[in-house]
This record gives sequence, C-alpha cells and structure tokens, in this order.
Amino acid sequence: MMRDTPLPPGSTIGILGGGQLGRMLSAAASRLGLKTHIYNDTPDAPAFHVAAKGSVGNYDDLEAVTRFAEKVDVVTCEFENVPADALEAAGTATAVFPPVKSFEVAQDRLTEKDFISGLGIAVAPYAPVDTLSDLKDSILRVPPPCLLKTRRFGYDGKGQARIHTLCGAESAWESIGEAPAILEGMVDFERELSIVTVHGRDGEVRFYDVVENVHKDGILDTSTVPANIPAALETQAQEIAGKIAEALGHVGVLTVEMFQTGGDKPSLAVNEIAPRVHNSGHWTQDACLISQFENHIRAICGWPLGDVARHSDAVMTNLIGSDADGWHQYAAEPGTAVHLYGKAEARPGRKMGHINRISPKT
Amino acid sequence: MMRDTPLPPGSTIGILGGGQLGRMLSAAASRLGLKTHIYNDTPDAPAFHVAAKGSVGNYDDLEAVTRFAEKVDVVTCEFENVPADALEAAGTATAVFPPVKSFEVAQDRLTEKDFISGLGIAVAPYAPVDTLSDLKDSILRVPPPCLLKTRRFGYDGKGQARIHTLCGAESAWESIGEAPAILEGMVDFERELSIVTVHGRDGEVRFYDVVENVHKDGILDTSTVPANIPAALETQAQEIAGKIAEALGHVGVLTVEMFQTGGDKPSLAVNEIAPRVHNSGHWTQDACLISQFENHIRAICGWPLGDVARHSDAVMTNLIGSDADGWHQYAAEPGTAVHLYGKAEARPGRKMGHINRISPKT
Repeated sequence: MMRDTPLPPGSTIGILGGGQLGRMLSAAASRLGLKTHIYNDTPDAPAFHVAAKGSVGNYDDLEAVTRFAEKVDVVTCEFENVPADALEAAGTATAVFPPVKSFEVAQDRLTEKDFISGLGIAVAPYAPVDTLSDLKDSILRVPPPCLLKTRRFGYDGKGQARIHTLCGAESAWESIGEAPAILEGMVDFERELSIVTVHGRDGEVRFYDVVENVHKDGILDTSTVPANIPAALETQAQEIAGKIAEALGHVGVLTVEMFQTGGDKPSLAVNEIAPRVHNSGHWTQDACLISQFENHIRAICGWPLGDVARHSDAVMTNLIGSDADGWHQYAAEPGTAVHLYGKAEARPGRKMGHINRISPKT
Repeated sequence: MMRDTPLPPGSTIGILGGGQLGRMLSAAASRLGLKTHIYNDTPDAPAFHVAAKGSVGNYDDLEAVTRFAEKVDVVTCEFENVPADALEAAGTATAVFPPVKSFEVAQDRLTEKDFISGLGIAVAPYAPVDTLSDLKDSILRVPPPCLLKTRRFGYDGKGQARIHTLCGAESAWESIGEAPAILEGMVDFERELSIVTVHGRDGEVRFYDVVENVHKDGILDTSTVPANIPAALETQAQEIAGKIAEALGHVGVLTVEMFQTGGDKPSLAVNEIAPRVHNSGHWTQDACLISQFENHIRAICGWPLGDVARHSDAVMTNLIGSDADGWHQYAAEPGTAVHLYGKAEARPGRKMGHINRISPKT
C-alpha cells in the first residue's frame, strides 16, 4: 500500500455502489487506462455494464467487503450512506478515499450541521430532535414553517416533513417514522447553488464553477452554469468548500449545496454536503475538458488533478421516471448531450438519465 | 430484426474487435444507456474492461460469430480487416452496420482505388501488381519515387516498401512478401488531411471539421483542427466523403484520408478510406459535444445523429510505445486530456494512448 505513489495505468479501482455515479466513474476511469471493480448489493446495477469486474454482496458483510478490497488498488464510494465499518474493513486491505470522516459527517444531518457551523460557516437554524417532546420544545426556537428531517438516510426529499404550524408536530414526527431527526428552519433564499471541489492526495485543490440549482418535488431538476451571482459570492463559495474539505482531510470530489440569502447584500448558508461526485456536477461532463468523474478518479489515485476550466455554458436537466421516454427527441436536439443510466425500470421519482444543453461561453 | 426502428436504451451492441476503438465505442455507448458485447480473438483486449459481455473466438469461426450475433441487437466492427464472411454470418442473425460493401472496398487497396477513381474523385497514380514482372512493367508508368503496398492487411506503414530507382523493384517485391499489391505514385503534397463523416440509417449525413495530420515513421503522430485550409477545400472534402459514403450505402462513421496538392490552386486527392471510427477523429472526444464514437453508435442504432460542431481548437498527439510512460506529465498539463488504452505491454510502434490539447476556438 503506497498511498503517496500515484496508481499507474492498469491499476484497479474498487467502487462501493453500482448506481449511475459508479457507472460514470467507471467510464471516466477507462479514459485513464484504469480498470474498475464494482461492489453492489444487487446484481443488476448500471455500473456493472462498464466495469472490468463485479461483486455482489451486502455492505454489512464485512468479510466480503474485505475480500473485495484485497483485489483492488484503492477503494472509493459512489453513495454516502455506506456503513462506516464497511469502509474500515476495506481500509484494512487497501487505501480508501475519501476518508471515513467525510462519510461520518455527511451521513448524519446533525453531525454535519454541528461540523459546518463549528467551522464558522453559516447554516440554516436547526435543533436536534430525538423525541416528540424534543420536537415540541424545538419548534418554539425554530418556528414554522420549518422542516423535520431524519438524521440519516434521507435523499431526494425522502425522510422529510414540512411543518406549517405548531399543531403539525405530531403528524410530522409520525411521517418520518419517529427516527432521530433535526428540525431545520426554512431559509428564505434567492437561489440554490452548489460547488464541486476536488482535493488531491497531495493537497492540490480545484473548484468547478458555481452552479444554480432548481429542485422540483424535492429532486434536483436543473443545474445552470454560470450561476447568476456576483464574483464575490463565487469566491465565498470556494472559501466555504475549501474550508470544509480541508477540515475533513477530504480526498476526491466533495460537493457543497448552499442557499444564497440576504437580498441586496448576498451571502451564503450551507444546506448540505456530499463526499462524492454529485448530480449538480453532471454538467462538467460536457462543458469542461475534465469532468467531476475523471477528477475524482485522478484524486483518489494520486494523479495530478485535471483542468476544471469551463469551455461552454451549460444547463443540465434530470430525466426522472418517464421523462426518459423522451430520449429520441432529446437526442435530436442540437447542442444537447443525452446521458442514460441503463436502468431497466422507470419508476416514478427514479433518476433515469440527464441531458446537458451546451452553448458558447458568454 | 427491425432495421428502421431505433434500438431503444437497454439494447446490446455487438462489436467485432476488442482494441482501443472498441473500448472507446463501448464507453460512448454507455452514455446512451446501451450495452456492448465484445467479440475478440484474444482474451486480454482493452475493450473487455468496459463491456457488459465478452466472447473470445476466431473471426473465421463462423459458427461462433453467428452465436455471438444472435445474442446482440446490432453488430459493428472496430477494425476494417474483419473477414467478409464473418460479417455475412453475423448478418444471418442480426443487423450489421456498416454494410459489407464498405469493408470489401476498404480492405483491398486496388478495389478501393478503382472504386474511388470510378466516382470521378482524384487519387494518386496507381497500377495493380500481381507478379514481379507486373511490377517491372508498372514501374515505367508509375515512375520512382513510388510505393509498393500490399492490397490487403496493411496499416500504420506495414506491408509497404518505397522504391527509389528502377533497380529497387526486386528487393521491394521481396520485402512485402510477394503478395498481391499496388504500385502507387508518391504524391507531392502540401499537407495530409482527413475528414470524419457519419451517415445515419435514414440517410442523415454529418461532417466533422477537416483535420490536418502529420505522420511519423508511417504512423499518425498529430491531428490538428482547424486545418490551415481555405473554406473551398473544406467543402470539397465534404463532397468527396459524402460521395464515397453514399456510393457505398455506408451507415456509421467513415473516414477519408486525403492529400492537399496543387500549390496555389489547392485540390484534394484521396489516399485511403476507413469504414470506421479513426485515429484522426480522436480529437472529437474533447473538442466536440458528441464524439465520433458516440455518433457511430447513434448511426448504427438508428438514433438521430449528434451535434458535430466543434467548441474548441484541438491538437491530438498519439502516444506510441514508450511515449505513454509520460502519462503523469501529460496529466498535469493544463488544457490536456489524457486517454490511455489499458494495454499491458508498450511494444515499440504500438498505440498506447493519445492526448488532446484543447484551446479556445479561434
């Protein structure tokens, strides 16, 4: 295990998780002459189609995870809810990037909020909620409208309940399954933004341009770049993302989702972080020379980071559920790249693909 | 077998050949939610690393090729020297694109020259050579300096001998193994150019920008785009490529290599054609929204063709043999994308990868 020597072409990257992010990481690794080995808990996952090897096993089967890690030269993850002990098991056999700490912080909304606000970075008002009684107390400090969110395993609007009045506490508590939660104040934001940063094993840092995100039904709908923000805010976003990544000792791609607040005097508050390639970075595939996927691979393999400069403007639009039925029409559009994930079944709310619409840089 | 209905996402493309072109076709197919199944005559080939399935078999094992074709939704090739009867065997089981005719013409330098000049398109002076006596006769009509080239199986300067004087006939004839050949006049060219065109199943046609190529030791060294040529020549190149592809009934990518001749009154003469994605089209991966690889996949699957517009200037440089040892240095260069093919052994003259250096469009 030589963490400071770059992994040469021909090496194998182990990826925990076989979804679309693993699939796109795998295709990006192939550009660099690197192989991938996918570990996933179900056999028919999108990433298996473009990987040199695949293993099927549960993430809590630590022996299986260890055997997998023994066969590869570095382990990474394509989703953040991988159990910390799976990462630790993998780490007994080979190098693991990003570090366990990045996952521990990102997996728990309370830990995440405490960590980020502990760095002096603004977040939405929040309070921990372990019981209905906690919730009733907290709701006085974080008044409605507010959001009750489970601390763990929430994504794409799942595990969340909106509270409109003081009377809404009980039904919200029931609807999230009475799980440990946080109560979060609703931020009166101008726009939602995110920034994708990549940190190398040697401390090298790069930032992609800030994007403006629009969500629909709790799921990302579009990401537009450049975001319509002043230069000072772009700098602030970089400072925030750099500070968080550094405090985590992060290696690889890290994404920070933020709210722009403050009206005429704009400032940023962090919403959440993801210790991985992110849906709001998919535009980099077609508007940058080196995508977030390739830069994550470069970072965890100890390669020099790739050029993050943007050569085109871009609007990324997600294809959710039956949206993907329009593939033929999107494929015929000038200036449009279609990305489909190879998922057999288009369930409502399921991310099936995305399109990047590109135009000359303004 | 529905040749006129586009193959939907989830379909499987069979690729005869497992080299770097198959590898990059496979990665491109994955963007569109399509799977690939590679058929190759040796087990450790670059394309197997990014394919959903792989089969190892000889190309002249027609039963094995047919069984392979039965498992996929369309068959294509990544090299032009696939035996015609293998394509015909595959065609009994499923659709095959490009058509057999494109391979028959491109595989034989004499057939190729006859076909192209028969369309009224300029080529270098040439004469068929089946015997040493033929060669001695032909050399009077195509005087030295000239090139003796085997009709079949030549690539990257292999199967060629240069003849400098009338006395050079015998040694040239021996050096190419006394195989059926053509004698070709050396063209006094200003520059070497090529154009990549893609033809859809419905007759839709697109052209990438013309590139300027420089060869070293008979192997492509660099491709530069834009080529330093007048607009009229760009149009002429499109007309030539369109005419050839149409006469072949071609579907998929077709590449035409040409010489610019004529000094102050520039014109074009065709050198050779390739019925496939081509090394001189690798720049499209990083300087166009949709690469030659994705457009080949789109064409053979009956999809709408993708946008061929160039968003950046580009210089592609091949990494031959030990050139690839410089991967770390190339990876650190701003504006540079590194592509490595995952080949284990860097033999001299072997194509190991390429780099695309990108700059804003002039």
